[in-house]
Amino acid sequence: MTYKPDPKLDLVLERIVDVPRKLVWAAWTQPEHVKKWFTPAPWKTVGCEIDLRPGGIFSTLMRSPEGQDFPNVGCYLEVVEQERLVWTDALLPGYRPSKEPFMTAMLLLDTQGNGTKYTAIAMHRDEASRKKHEDMGFHQGWGKALDQLVAHAGSMGS
Amino acid sequence: MTYKPDPKLDLVLERIVDVPRKLVWAAWTQPEHVKKWFTPAPWKTVGCEIDLRPGGIFSTLMRSPEGQDFPNVGCYLEVVEQERLVWTDALLPGYRPSKEPFMTAMLLLDTQGNGTKYTAIAMHRDEASRKKHEDMGFHQGWGKALDQLVAHAGSMGS
Repeated sequence: MTYKPDPKLDLVLERIVDVPRKLVWAAWTQPEHVKKWFTPAPWKTVGCEIDLRPGGIFSTLMRSPEGQDFPNVGCYLEVVEQERLVWTDALLPGYRPSKEPFMTAMLLLDTQGNGTKYTAIAMHRDEASRKKHEDMGFHQGWGKALDQLVAHAGSMGS
Repeated sequence: MTYKPDPKLDLVLERIVDVPRKLVWAAWTQPEHVKKWFTPAPWKTVGCEIDLRPGGIFSTLMRSPEGQDFPNVGCYLEVVEQERLVWTDALLPGYRPSKEPFMTAMLLLDTQGNGTKYTAIAMHRDEASRKKHEDMGFHQGWGKALDQLVAHAGSMGS
Protein backbone atom coordinates (compact mmCIF):
# COMPACT_ATOMS: atom_id res chain seq x y z
CA MET A 1 0.00 0.00 0.00
CA THR A 2 1.41 3.38 -0.94
CA TYR A 3 1.91 5.72 1.98
CA LYS A 4 0.06 9.01 1.78
CA PRO A 5 1.55 11.41 4.33
CA ASP A 6 -0.69 13.63 6.41
CA PRO A 7 1.32 16.29 8.27
CA LYS A 8 -1.57 16.90 10.67
CA LEU A 9 -1.77 13.28 11.78
CA ASP A 10 1.64 11.71 11.18
CA LEU A 11 5.07 11.97 12.76
CA VAL A 12 8.06 11.17 10.59
CA LEU A 13 11.71 10.46 11.30
CA GLU A 14 13.85 10.34 8.17
CA ARG A 15 17.58 9.86 8.20
CA ILE A 16 20.42 8.36 6.19
CA VAL A 17 22.34 5.87 8.29
CA ASP A 18 25.68 4.24 7.60
CA VAL A 19 24.32 0.72 8.04
CA PRO A 20 23.46 -1.71 5.22
CA ARG A 21 19.75 -2.18 4.67
CA LYS A 22 20.07 -5.87 5.42
CA LEU A 23 21.32 -5.15 8.94
CA VAL A 24 18.67 -2.51 9.62
CA TRP A 25 16.05 -5.08 8.65
CA ALA A 26 17.59 -7.72 10.91
CA ALA A 27 17.79 -5.24 13.79
CA TRP A 28 14.05 -4.61 13.49
CA THR A 29 12.87 -8.16 12.95
CA GLN A 30 14.89 -10.41 15.26
CA PRO A 31 14.08 -10.24 18.99
CA GLU A 32 17.69 -10.69 20.13
CA HIS A 33 18.62 -7.56 18.17
CA VAL A 34 15.50 -5.54 19.01
CA LYS A 35 16.29 -5.91 22.72
CA LYS A 36 19.66 -4.24 22.17
CA TRP A 37 18.53 -0.92 20.75
CA PHE A 38 14.73 -0.44 20.66
CA THR A 39 14.23 1.62 23.83
CA PRO A 40 16.20 4.81 24.57
CA ALA A 41 18.55 4.28 27.55
CA PRO A 42 18.29 4.29 30.51
CA TRP A 43 15.06 2.43 29.68
CA LYS A 44 15.53 -1.15 28.54
CA THR A 45 13.75 -3.59 26.27
CA VAL A 46 13.56 -6.72 28.41
CA GLY A 47 11.21 -8.74 26.21
CA CYS A 48 10.35 -9.04 22.53
CA GLU A 49 8.19 -11.45 20.57
CA ILE A 50 8.01 -11.50 16.79
CA ASP A 51 5.98 -13.57 14.35
CA LEU A 52 7.01 -11.91 11.11
CA ARG A 53 3.93 -12.14 8.88
CA PRO A 54 0.69 -10.20 8.46
CA GLY A 55 -1.47 -10.91 11.49
CA GLY A 56 1.57 -11.98 13.53
CA ILE A 57 2.64 -10.57 16.86
CA PHE A 58 5.10 -7.75 17.41
CA SER A 59 5.41 -7.19 21.12
CA THR A 60 7.99 -5.50 23.29
CA LEU A 61 8.33 -5.18 27.03
CA MET A 62 10.00 -1.98 28.16
CA ARG A 63 11.42 -1.46 31.65
CA SER A 64 11.77 1.97 33.22
CA PRO A 65 14.87 2.96 35.22
CA GLU A 66 12.68 2.48 38.34
CA GLY A 67 11.96 -1.11 37.32
CA GLN A 68 8.38 -0.68 36.11
CA ASP A 69 7.40 -2.75 33.07
CA PHE A 70 5.39 -1.46 30.11
CA PRO A 71 4.16 -4.05 27.62
CA ASN A 72 3.31 -3.12 24.04
CA VAL A 73 1.46 -5.61 21.88
CA GLY A 74 0.88 -5.05 18.20
CA CYS A 75 0.13 -6.86 14.97
CA TYR A 76 2.08 -6.83 11.72
CA LEU A 77 0.14 -5.70 8.66
CA GLU A 78 2.75 -5.76 5.88
CA VAL A 79 6.12 -7.45 5.76
CA VAL A 80 8.19 -6.75 2.65
CA GLU A 81 11.73 -8.04 3.26
CA GLN A 82 14.29 -5.25 3.68
CA GLU A 83 11.86 -2.71 2.28
CA ARG A 84 8.73 -2.12 4.31
CA LEU A 85 7.39 -3.11 7.70
CA VAL A 86 3.94 -2.02 8.85
CA TRP A 87 2.38 -2.79 12.22
CA THR A 88 -0.32 -1.37 14.48
CA ASP A 89 -1.43 -1.44 18.09
CA ALA A 90 -5.03 -0.88 16.96
CA LEU A 91 -5.15 -4.65 16.38
CA LEU A 92 -3.94 -7.53 18.47
CA PRO A 93 -2.22 -10.51 16.82
CA GLY A 94 -4.77 -12.28 14.61
CA TYR A 95 -6.35 -8.88 13.81
CA ARG A 96 -8.72 -8.57 16.79
CA PRO A 97 -9.41 -4.88 17.60
CA SER A 98 -7.42 -3.78 20.64
CA LYS A 99 -8.69 -1.90 23.66
CA GLU A 100 -6.23 0.97 23.51
CA PRO A 101 -5.41 1.82 19.92
CA PHE A 102 -2.81 4.53 19.53
CA MET A 103 -0.87 4.27 16.28
CA THR A 104 0.08 2.44 13.14
CA ALA A 105 3.79 2.54 12.36
CA MET A 106 5.60 2.10 9.10
CA LEU A 107 9.29 1.54 8.50
CA LEU A 108 10.56 2.19 4.97
CA LEU A 109 14.10 1.26 3.91
CA ASP A 110 15.94 2.18 0.75
CA THR A 111 19.57 1.71 -0.25
CA GLN A 112 21.59 4.92 -0.22
CA GLY A 113 25.22 4.37 -1.28
CA ASN A 114 26.65 1.92 1.27
CA GLY A 115 24.02 2.90 3.78
CA THR A 116 20.28 3.13 4.15
CA LYS A 117 17.64 5.78 3.82
CA TYR A 118 15.59 5.16 6.94
CA THR A 119 12.04 6.47 7.21
CA ALA A 120 9.93 5.75 10.28
CA ILE A 121 6.35 6.99 10.32
CA ALA A 122 3.81 7.01 13.13
CA MET A 123 0.19 7.44 11.97
CA HIS A 124 -2.49 8.60 14.42
CA ARG A 125 -6.25 8.77 14.33
CA ASP A 126 -6.51 12.45 15.25
CA GLU A 127 -4.45 15.56 15.89
CA ALA A 128 -4.66 15.10 19.67
CA SER A 129 -3.01 11.66 19.45
CA ARG A 130 -0.33 13.04 17.17
CA LYS A 131 0.37 15.88 19.59
CA LYS A 132 0.46 13.55 22.57
CA HIS A 133 3.02 11.37 20.80
CA GLU A 134 5.07 14.41 19.83
CA ASP A 135 4.98 15.68 23.43
CA MET A 136 6.03 12.23 24.67
CA GLY A 137 9.21 12.90 22.71
CA PHE A 138 8.71 11.05 19.42
CA HIS A 139 11.56 12.71 17.56
CA GLN A 140 14.08 12.52 20.36
CA GLY A 141 13.04 9.01 21.40
CA TRP A 142 12.93 7.40 17.97
CA GLY A 143 16.11 9.31 17.01
CA LYS A 144 17.99 8.09 20.07
CA ALA A 145 16.78 4.54 19.48
CA LEU A 146 18.07 4.79 15.91
CA ASP A 147 21.47 5.95 17.24
CA GLN A 148 21.45 2.82 19.41
CA LEU A 149 20.52 0.67 16.39
CA VAL A 150 23.46 2.12 14.45
CA ALA A 151 25.83 1.49 17.37
CA HIS A 152 24.53 -2.07 17.78
CA ALA A 153 24.82 -2.77 14.05
CA GLY A 154 28.60 -2.45 14.38
CA SER A 155 28.55 -5.67 16.41
CA MET A 156 26.11 -7.56 14.20
CA GLY A 157 28.49 -8.54 11.41
CA SER A 158 27.08 -8.78 7.89
CA MET B 1 -3.10 -16.04 9.54
CA THR B 2 -4.89 -18.97 11.13
CA TYR B 3 -8.13 -18.05 12.84
CA LYS B 4 -8.37 -18.86 16.52
CA PRO B 5 -12.00 -18.68 17.62
CA ASP B 6 -12.93 -17.12 20.93
CA PRO B 7 -16.56 -17.81 21.86
CA LYS B 8 -16.55 -14.96 24.37
CA LEU B 9 -15.51 -12.36 21.83
CA ASP B 10 -16.55 -13.64 18.40
CA LEU B 11 -19.81 -14.10 16.54
CA VAL B 12 -19.93 -16.74 13.83
CA LEU B 13 -22.34 -17.52 11.02
CA GLU B 14 -21.63 -20.82 9.30
CA ARG B 15 -23.75 -22.28 6.56
CA ILE B 16 -23.56 -24.40 3.43
CA VAL B 17 -24.96 -22.49 0.45
CA ASP B 18 -25.87 -23.78 -2.97
CA VAL B 19 -23.72 -21.22 -4.75
CA PRO B 20 -20.30 -21.87 -6.30
CA ARG B 21 -17.40 -20.37 -4.35
CA LYS B 22 -16.42 -18.26 -7.33
CA LEU B 23 -19.78 -16.47 -7.26
CA VAL B 24 -19.76 -15.97 -3.49
CA TRP B 25 -16.34 -14.34 -3.87
CA ALA B 26 -17.55 -12.11 -6.68
CA ALA B 27 -20.64 -11.14 -4.67
CA TRP B 28 -18.39 -9.98 -1.83
CA THR B 29 -15.71 -8.21 -3.84
CA GLN B 30 -17.43 -6.32 -6.67
CA PRO B 31 -19.37 -3.18 -5.70
CA GLU B 32 -22.16 -3.75 -8.25
CA HIS B 33 -22.90 -7.09 -6.63
CA VAL B 34 -22.41 -5.96 -3.01
CA LYS B 35 -25.10 -3.31 -3.50
CA LYS B 36 -27.60 -6.01 -4.42
CA TRP B 37 -27.49 -8.10 -1.25
CA PHE B 38 -25.30 -6.68 1.53
CA THR B 39 -27.93 -4.99 3.69
CA PRO B 40 -31.06 -6.78 4.93
CA ALA B 41 -34.18 -5.34 3.27
CA PRO B 42 -35.91 -2.95 3.66
CA TRP B 43 -32.54 -1.28 4.25
CA LYS B 44 -30.48 -0.71 1.12
CA THR B 45 -26.82 -0.52 0.22
CA VAL B 46 -26.66 2.62 -1.89
CA GLY B 47 -22.89 2.94 -2.15
CA CYS B 48 -19.86 0.66 -2.11
CA GLU B 49 -16.19 1.25 -2.73
CA ILE B 50 -13.63 -1.54 -2.97
CA ASP B 51 -9.88 -1.54 -3.47
CA LEU B 52 -9.20 -5.24 -3.14
CA ARG B 53 -5.76 -5.45 -1.53
CA PRO B 54 -4.33 -5.22 1.98
CA GLY B 55 -4.61 -1.59 3.06
CA GLY B 56 -7.31 -0.91 0.46
CA ILE B 57 -10.73 0.51 1.17
CA PHE B 58 -13.90 -1.48 1.79
CA SER B 59 -16.72 0.96 2.34
CA THR B 60 -20.47 0.69 2.17
CA LEU B 61 -23.21 3.24 2.50
CA MET B 62 -26.42 1.88 3.99
CA ARG B 63 -29.76 3.67 3.77
CA SER B 64 -32.54 3.11 6.30
CA PRO B 65 -36.18 2.81 5.23
CA GLU B 66 -36.59 6.39 6.52
CA GLY B 67 -33.88 7.58 4.15
CA GLN B 68 -31.08 8.08 6.66
CA ASP B 69 -27.59 7.16 5.45
CA PHE B 70 -25.04 5.20 7.49
CA PRO B 71 -21.51 5.04 6.09
CA ASN B 72 -19.11 2.26 7.04
CA VAL B 73 -15.45 2.60 6.13
CA GLY B 74 -12.99 -0.20 6.62
CA CYS B 75 -9.66 -1.52 5.45
CA TYR B 76 -8.79 -4.90 3.95
CA LEU B 77 -6.14 -6.89 5.81
CA GLU B 78 -5.96 -10.14 3.86
CA VAL B 79 -7.24 -10.99 0.39
CA VAL B 80 -6.85 -14.62 -0.66
CA GLU B 81 -8.88 -15.16 -3.85
CA GLN B 82 -12.01 -17.28 -3.30
CA GLU B 83 -10.73 -18.41 0.08
CA ARG B 84 -10.33 -15.73 2.70
CA LEU B 85 -11.21 -12.07 3.08
CA VAL B 86 -10.29 -10.13 6.20
CA TRP B 87 -11.11 -6.51 6.90
CA THR B 88 -11.51 -4.22 9.89
CA ASP B 89 -13.10 -0.92 10.84
CA ALA B 90 -10.38 -0.43 13.48
CA LEU B 91 -8.24 0.90 10.63
CA LEU B 92 -9.03 3.30 7.83
CA PRO B 93 -7.72 2.62 4.32
CA GLY B 94 -3.93 2.91 4.40
CA TYR B 95 -3.97 1.44 7.94
CA ARG B 96 -4.51 4.64 9.94
CA PRO B 97 -6.27 3.87 13.27
CA SER B 98 -9.94 4.81 13.09
CA LYS B 99 -11.91 6.84 15.59
CA GLU B 100 -14.65 4.27 16.21
CA PRO B 101 -13.25 0.75 16.05
CA PHE B 102 -15.85 -1.97 16.43
CA MET B 103 -14.87 -5.20 14.72
CA THR B 104 -12.64 -7.19 12.45
CA ALA B 105 -14.50 -9.48 10.09
CA MET B 106 -13.35 -12.61 8.33
CA LEU B 107 -15.02 -14.47 5.49
CA LEU B 108 -13.85 -18.04 4.88
CA LEU B 109 -14.96 -20.00 1.83
CA ASP B 110 -14.51 -23.67 1.07
CA THR B 111 -15.89 -25.88 -1.67
CA GLN B 112 -18.64 -28.24 -0.51
CA GLY B 113 -19.96 -30.42 -3.31
CA ASN B 114 -21.38 -28.01 -5.89
CA GLY B 115 -21.80 -25.34 -3.26
CA THR B 116 -19.80 -23.49 -0.66
CA LYS B 117 -19.15 -23.75 3.02
CA TYR B 118 -19.58 -20.16 4.11
CA THR B 119 -18.13 -18.96 7.41
CA ALA B 120 -18.45 -15.33 8.46
CA ILE B 121 -16.80 -14.24 11.69
CA ALA B 122 -17.01 -10.97 13.56
CA MET B 123 -14.22 -10.41 16.10
CA HIS B 124 -14.63 -7.86 18.89
CA ARG B 125 -12.30 -6.30 21.43
CA ASP B 126 -14.37 -7.17 24.48
CA GLU B 127 -17.48 -9.03 25.61
CA ALA B 128 -19.55 -5.85 25.69
CA SER B 129 -18.89 -5.18 22.00
CA ARG B 130 -19.72 -8.76 21.13
CA LYS B 131 -22.98 -8.53 23.08
CA LYS B 132 -23.89 -5.21 21.49
CA HIS B 133 -23.37 -6.74 18.05
CA GLU B 134 -25.42 -9.79 18.99
CA ASP B 135 -28.22 -7.57 20.31
CA MET B 136 -28.11 -5.53 17.09
CA GLY B 137 -29.15 -8.76 15.42
CA PHE B 138 -25.93 -10.21 14.06
CA HIS B 139 -27.27 -13.69 13.35
CA GLN B 140 -30.54 -12.61 11.82
CA GLY B 141 -28.98 -9.73 9.88
CA TRP B 142 -26.00 -11.56 8.45
CA GLY B 143 -28.21 -14.58 7.79
CA LYS B 144 -30.78 -12.55 5.90
CA ALA B 145 -28.06 -10.82 3.92
CA LEU B 146 -26.69 -14.24 3.00
CA ASP B 147 -30.18 -15.29 1.82
CA GLN B 148 -30.14 -12.19 -0.39
CA LEU B 149 -26.68 -13.09 -1.68
CA VAL B 150 -27.91 -16.57 -2.60
CA ALA B 151 -30.97 -15.11 -4.37
CA HIS B 152 -28.81 -12.58 -6.21
CA ALA B 153 -26.28 -15.24 -7.25
CA GLY B 154 -29.00 -16.82 -9.40
CA SER B 155 -28.83 -13.77 -11.66
CA MET B 156 -25.03 -13.48 -11.72
CA GLY B 157 -24.27 -16.24 -14.21
CA SER B 158 -21.07 -18.20 -13.78
